[in-house]
Amino acid sequence: MPQLTPSPKPLTRAEISDPLAAELWQVAQALADAARPEVLAHFRQVDLTADNKDAGGFDPVTVADRAAEAAIRAKLQELRPQDAILGEEQGYSAGSSGLTWVIDPIDGTRAFISGTPTWGVLIGLQDAAGAILGIIDQPYIGERFSGGLGVAQVEGPQGRATLQTHAPRALDQAIIMTTFPEVGSAEEGAAFRRVAARARLTRYGMDCYAYALVASGQVDLVIEAGLNPYDIMAPIAVIEAAGGVVSNWQGGPAHEGGQVIAAANPQIHTEALALLAG
Amino acid sequence: MPQLTPSPKPLTRAEISDPLAAELWQVAQALADAARPEVLAHFRQVDLTADNKDAGGFDPVTVADRAAEAAIRAKLQELRPQDAILGEEQGYSAGSSGLTWVIDPIDGTRAFISGTPTWGVLIGLQDAAGAILGIIDQPYIGERFSGGLGVAQVEGPQGRATLQTHAPRALDQAIIMTTFPEVGSAEEGAAFRRVAARARLTRYGMDCYAYALVASGQVDLVIEAGLNPYDIMAPIAVIEAAGGVVSNWQGGPAHEGGQVIAAANPQIHTEALALLAG
Repeated sequence: MPQLTPSPKPLTRAEISDPLAAELWQVAQALADAARPEVLAHFRQVDLTADNKDAGGFDPVTVADRAAEAAIRAKLQELRPQDAILGEEQGYSAGSSGLTWVIDPIDGTRAFISGTPTWGVLIGLQDAAGAILGIIDQPYIGERFSGGLGVAQVEGPQGRATLQTHAPRALDQAIIMTTFPEVGSAEEGAAFRRVAARARLTRYGMDCYAYALVASGQVDLVIEAGLNPYDIMAPIAVIEAAGGVVSNWQGGPAHEGGQVIAAANPQIHTEALALLAG
Repeated sequence: MPQLTPSPKPLTRAEISDPLAAELWQVAQALADAARPEVLAHFRQVDLTADNKDAGGFDPVTVADRAAEAAIRAKLQELRPQDAILGEEQGYSAGSSGLTWVIDPIDGTRAFISGTPTWGVLIGLQDAAGAILGIIDQPYIGERFSGGLGVAQVEGPQGRATLQTHAPRALDQAIIMTTFPEVGSAEEGAAFRRVAARARLTRYGMDCYAYALVASGQVDLVIEAGLNPYDIMAPIAVIEAAGGVVSNWQGGPAHEGGQVIAAANPQIHTEALALLAG
């Protein structure tokens, strides 16, 4: 039996034409726009509730998280039904285009339930080779960091600016961030502290906003462990577009999550990798 | 020899009439307004430099810090030259009114040089008895928390709202913040961790923004050590106006700085004080 409709051949990255790139950016911005009202409706509400979906730890999931992912999925269904979706809340939905939108509707749910404006909506797009484009959106501040396919920009309270990571500087002049001071396992924490001990300044608690600060040229290194793919896909695209480097702690691809290091430039990336290795 | 002009008698707090209260609020808002462009001109500038004024540690002072305090002092000289000023940068200037403006032009200079939008401009007003009014201003977000003399409000990206601290809840449901994970000395750090270990969630790195989150009903406790008077005067006024309690770790007045605990309500304040005491 012949197929009635031929299965479309997945796109390769080289086949992303300028018109398609423009379309993908329009879609990405529309997804971030769709999420904003959903999350803001619940941010800093006193009756905010958080389930505990992981009995072994603290992993709050808010109504906002689910509503934002649903809004993003509905928008994708309307604009690019041929693409696959990997979302933090609803998992994987197959597509036929070879492209997958990787979505974290609220990265930093602990920040969110604390009222801190440093969580973000993460919108990433990948093919089999990795990140293609990404958005780190902070709806409360009204700040959006976008990178990939020739774009590297932030739009926010101060207007629009090009994203550019910091020039190389010695580690003892560098600023390093991670979200949780313990940084994963005891061994992972010790590796982090080997780098942090050499840095000028270590700061905590910024979730995905820390990656936006690398892309903005403010922070030299972010080192984290235990990440999921949807935590890091969008940051990879934004930071690489701004001139930075993102890898796992062995220097390999980071888009599967796990141990991740984001660096402002290859020089400090190499220096930090050596210290992480012990 | 008689005095040619009699020395004015210092105001007592009970003598602050409604018109004077309105005038003091207008002045406070004008001071915060004067600081905003000075600090924003330097925020996230790549050539930002930070002196190291404390050889024993990391205490950056930026050009922005000095420019903002100069702008605030100039505005006070214009509007209320009879008041004293205590500023982080230029120290104490005497006045004749019995009122002192307590100013930290940038609280959270480490956050500032990291690009994090969680530093703030602190404007406090005190008499001999303590805090009268305060502003925690976040110029990048465009968010201002004001409290005292009948005012308890936030103005920001979501408009204007009344500040109200969180209702009492059990410590194991509570959110606790401090800026630096080590929290002062080893003994102070251990005391902090006695409280944090009982809490639902501990977050770091927010500087004065953590106090704004207590006033906003998002965070139950902020516990810090080694504060200066200009770090805490404005937060005291904002949190107390919103229904919270701020004291030192012994339950006494906090406006001199040192070990400070800010609590959403008297119940959790009492519970945390007992744990801090050991």
